[in-house]
Amino acid sequence: MQKSLSVYDSDGSTFAPLVVIELVSETKEEAIAWLLNRVRDKQQDGGAELLVEQLTPGAQGTEKDNPNVYVVGASWQRLLYGAEDVGLFKEFKDGSMRGFTYANKHNFKEFQGDGDGFLSMAECQYIIKHGLDNLRAKDEAHVPGYPKMKLYPGKSVIRRMQSKGILVQVFPLHEKEELKRLSFSWFKKIKLSFQPLDDIRHYFGEGMALYFGFLEYFTLALIPMALIGIPYYLFDWEDYDKFTVFAGFNLVWCTVILELWKRLSASLAYGWGTLSRKKAFEEPRPGFHGVLGVNPVTGRAEPLYSNAKRQLRIYLLSVPFVLLCLYLSLYVMMIYFDMEGWALMIHDEEPTFWTGLLLFIPSIIYAVVIEIMNLIYRYAAEFLTGWENHRLESTFQNHLVLKVLVFNFFNCFASLFYIAFVMQDMVLLRQSLATLLITSQILNQIMEAFLPYWLQRRRNKKAHKRMIKTMEDKELPLSEQVKLEADMSTYLGTFDDYLELFLLFGYVSLFSCVYPLAAVLVVLNNVTEVYSDAFKMCKVFKRPFSEPAANIGVWQLAFEAMSVIAVVTNCALIGMSPQVKSYFPESETQLILWVVGFEHFLLASKFILTFVIPDVPKHIQIKLSRLEFESLEALKKRKMLEASGIPKTAK
Amino acid sequence: MQKSLSVYDSDGSTFAPLVVIELVSETKEEAIAWLLNRVRDKQQDGGAELLVEQLTPGAQGTEKDNPNVYVVGASWQRLLYGAEDVGLFKEFKDGSMRGFTYANKHNFKEFQGDGDGFLSMAECQYIIKHGLDNLRAKDEAHVPGYPKMKLYPGKSVIRRMQSKGILVQVFPLHEKEELKRLSFSWFKKIKLSFQPLDDIRHYFGEGMALYFGFLEYFTLALIPMALIGIPYYLFDWEDYDKFTVFAGFNLVWCTVILELWKRLSASLAYGWGTLSRKKAFEEPRPGFHGVLGVNPVTGRAEPLYSNAKRQLRIYLLSVPFVLLCLYLSLYVMMIYFDMEGWALMIHDEEPTFWTGLLLFIPSIIYAVVIEIMNLIYRYAAEFLTGWENHRLESTFQNHLVLKVLVFNFFNCFASLFYIAFVMQDMVLLRQSLATLLITSQILNQIMEAFLPYWLQRRRNKKAHKRMIKTMEDKELPLSEQVKLEADMSTYLGTFDDYLELFLLFGYVSLFSCVYPLAAVLVVLNNVTEVYSDAFKMCKVFKRPFSEPAANIGVWQLAFEAMSVIAVVTNCALIGMSPQVKSYFPESETQLILWVVGFEHFLLASKFILTFVIPDVPKHIQIKLSRLEFESLEALKKRKMLEASGIPKTAK
Repeated sequence: MQKSLSVYDSDGSTFAPLVVIELVSETKEEAIAWLLNRVRDKQQDGGAELLVEQLTPGAQGTEKDNPNVYVVGASWQRLLYGAEDVGLFKEFKDGSMRGFTYANKHNFKEFQGDGDGFLSMAECQYIIKHGLDNLRAKDEAHVPGYPKMKLYPGKSVIRRMQSKGILVQVFPLHEKEELKRLSFSWFKKIKLSFQPLDDIRHYFGEGMALYFGFLEYFTLALIPMALIGIPYYLFDWEDYDKFTVFAGFNLVWCTVILELWKRLSASLAYGWGTLSRKKAFEEPRPGFHGVLGVNPVTGRAEPLYSNAKRQLRIYLLSVPFVLLCLYLSLYVMMIYFDMEGWALMIHDEEPTFWTGLLLFIPSIIYAVVIEIMNLIYRYAAEFLTGWENHRLESTFQNHLVLKVLVFNFFNCFASLFYIAFVMQDMVLLRQSLATLLITSQILNQIMEAFLPYWLQRRRNKKAHKRMIKTMEDKELPLSEQVKLEADMSTYLGTFDDYLELFLLFGYVSLFSCVYPLAAVLVVLNNVTEVYSDAFKMCKVFKRPFSEPAANIGVWQLAFEAMSVIAVVTNCALIGMSPQVKSYFPESETQLILWVVGFEHFLLASKFILTFVIPDVPKHIQIKLSRLEFESLEALKKRKMLEASGIPKTAK
Repeated sequence: MQKSLSVYDSDGSTFAPLVVIELVSETKEEAIAWLLNRVRDKQQDGGAELLVEQLTPGAQGTEKDNPNVYVVGASWQRLLYGAEDVGLFKEFKDGSMRGFTYANKHNFKEFQGDGDGFLSMAECQYIIKHGLDNLRAKDEAHVPGYPKMKLYPGKSVIRRMQSKGILVQVFPLHEKEELKRLSFSWFKKIKLSFQPLDDIRHYFGEGMALYFGFLEYFTLALIPMALIGIPYYLFDWEDYDKFTVFAGFNLVWCTVILELWKRLSASLAYGWGTLSRKKAFEEPRPGFHGVLGVNPVTGRAEPLYSNAKRQLRIYLLSVPFVLLCLYLSLYVMMIYFDMEGWALMIHDEEPTFWTGLLLFIPSIIYAVVIEIMNLIYRYAAEFLTGWENHRLESTFQNHLVLKVLVFNFFNCFASLFYIAFVMQDMVLLRQSLATLLITSQILNQIMEAFLPYWLQRRRNKKAHKRMIKTMEDKELPLSEQVKLEADMSTYLGTFDDYLELFLLFGYVSLFSCVYPLAAVLVVLNNVTEVYSDAFKMCKVFKRPFSEPAANIGVWQLAFEAMSVIAVVTNCALIGMSPQVKSYFPESETQLILWVVGFEHFLLASKFILTFVIPDVPKHIQIKLSRLEFESLEALKKRKMLEASGIPKTAK
């Protein structure tokens, strides 16, 4: 980490500002003083033992600026202890990854001198966030000055202030020099190369790096498919019955790439030290509310909410709501088919150029409507999942992902399934697939990168000018930088990015055999996606806190579910191809039985493959077992020493 | 534990003998002396710190008796340390289950006074076995007196002597009083009641208790099915198209009972302290051989065997062999159908009483042949799996189970599948199912309990007389008891018992809708099975070492795979019923598509159900999380204390 910026702390010594806390401008003095004291207090007194100072407004500061902006840093000592506390894994002298401990610090590979530079800035910021999040109320009944802002022993102070709205935001600062280097190697270089995943992880953390790793892996995995697809598309344009081989290829492809990704992701996570990291005990999420009671696990006072009530809310409201939305989506789909038929009728009556154009209108409208419905549903799903009042952030996320996934899948693919299996019209399927894919890609690129960028430009033209200046002027004062970054949009996590990949994976794995160009389109989309995502992370959004992650989590499951559906779909498409049908000229029943048998065989093989291929590569498995064995041995040795010592006195 | 038996150790004090070691009678003196010294040595010197004495022959001792029989015991101190060492969980004062530690011993619920009686005899024997197994060579290059019996540092001494044949057996002693009480409450009582699972666990350990628990659970779960089956059988005897409802019931039943068993088994295992017990590092199995190298995990000298070679052996020999056996089994099946047709032809030509009897002969012969083939294959599979040279006992077991399961499944059910789906003859299916089920049940009961008992009686009539005496005469001297038990057969584990249950589960879940009496037969079989298994455990076999187990392991997976197959089979049977066929009078294709769709829906629901139903009941989940949380907190506190201490000196 470079100490390019520094502020003076109360002792007069300087510290590097890492994290910014912004309170609303009218916050009461006593609340601020109390919070700052708690942040500065020693850890054994229940404080966070961090350094915090009010940001002194720079030369360009105006009256309008919020004065309640604070920068937080920490001593190296505190950061190193914090690294042990959050359970950071670092490379040991012998090349293995081990949990960092302060006592053992000199045995870690990159630890030199007093350890300056041992932790990346993102790690330091994560440690500070952990310290702030774990700042808990002691005996305070409420936040000083705010009698309504109730506290109870053990409640996270920062979370309560955030949920009650006096804490506007807590965000980590960008590091201009490093960001510049990262931007250059990531998306400013013209040369074709892999993404600098280690640098991304260094700057943005493991969760983000895994997303970009998966995006790159997915793109590379698509290339063979695209290469096979192009000649298919060029030479067999009107020959719809040659897709059996392609469907077979699809089947194998989508199983194999997901299994290999698991292994690759384990390798990455091992190298980044998150693979064997233990999860800390999860605290209730900020939005969780309930009657104050005693948590049966921790024995601490905490709001409790009956699980039965939550289940009732889920099954009596959320599930019917989702089903209703699915029905609505089906209804819209039917309207689309009516429109399609109506356009076709007009075109057939009097074919002109304009009616020819009219033929494309329903598909485009439908694609736009799908995107809008997905967007609206997303808000409804978030609201509903919040209302279900889940205790943990992880359960909340799982329920949200499930809701959104089911609807988006249905919304995007229902019409294609209808065309493929009810209408059995391969020409229309190909046409719809192409329209849906291209329209949704264009819409996505606009919504995702250009819209936020443009909105921000509009919202804060002045700030933008400053930002441009930032790029050139390294000597921008801290107060200016903080103000600039505070105004940037907040990155809401990788959810939408993964969702987009999930739908693209669906288009490719489910139906690409009828439209071999799909893989090519997705590859092109992904390449621009890398650039636009990289751009938005570096230029559009506030720096996010790094999120330690060992895998892509629930998304692995979602992609695997999709690959199972792909097996079923591709088998059905194979069964419907005239090529295969010609083998069973007499009996359709025979054909169906064979296809169903083949499909069951494939599903069983897929299941067995998942068991047979180990999720973690052998060499990493050995390293992990070695660590485990060593800790077992150490425990045994310790016990043996105790045992040989105590009996003599006990006897 | 009752100290009903005792021998004098070298210090002249008495100890309770727990485990017997038998060496071949011509073992060299120096090897014996060396082994006994190693067993008696202190743990810090690499010994087992156990008490061991030669068994003094009793009054009836003859010249023929092997003099090299040793009894092993341990001091209470040693057993308590051992309990900590093997990671035993015991009930804590607050009612939760915690890992026992010597330092904390007085905080455990049943620990009174000096702790005598705190550990069950089975636990003490397990601790001694663990101590003996972990007796490792230090610098010895070979067993003294046997230059060919190579050792290397870290090699388990007992295992080497066992695999080279100078150690005949190591077995734990029965405890007559306790065994008598257990036998009475288990199978001598006439009253209908649940099995005394806690007592079984107390005497035989968790693995055995879980088997009997599962057997009982499975029997109870079958009762509703049997109750529905009886009227079906009585009133709809000739009405083959009413089985749709029964097939539907089957589907739900086999999914639900397996999910519920998981929860029940977790509850049992929690109460027995095995649920959260950590697995120790696994040493190579006794039969494993290879070139001496360095284990990459432990860094110890150990035989190594290339994984590539093992894979070659598996895929080039084992897999083709299994496939060949499957083909052979298919061939035998075809001969059976030929015989069946031939018998039918003779009967049709000149129907007499004898030709009527002839009709049953092929089925009975086939059932017997199946049992014989299963038995022969079993030996072949064991040989092959041994030859594959797996390093760990657990991998060996998994490969063996897989081989045996696939073949037994195929062998037992292939003919039924053929009759059901190729011949589509429901009358023959019912008849074959009944013959197979009844014949194999009778054969099994004979092979399993009566045959070993009878063989033993024949082999050792004198010993049997003594044994009868044992039952009455409590004052039988130790030497007599040891001799008697040493001659009893060795129990080879629960493998065959589970396999039998697995096949019965298959008969019931796959086809019972065409023969509703199957559930009734299986219930009857299981009731007698409980008694015969209990009898053989208490009277026929040597006491086995207790095996800590948290679940039924790979068998859970096997039963779940069977339940998936049951979904497919039952859907197909439903689709073939005239009742359902009448809904689609015109199009068979429509019918098949509906059935396939329904089947996919069921499979998906089953998959989702497995996710949704938690494997561990909520109240146990809370207890487990509380323990985990407490240990996290304790660690944090310790670190905080260190952190607040060290910086002052470090700064």
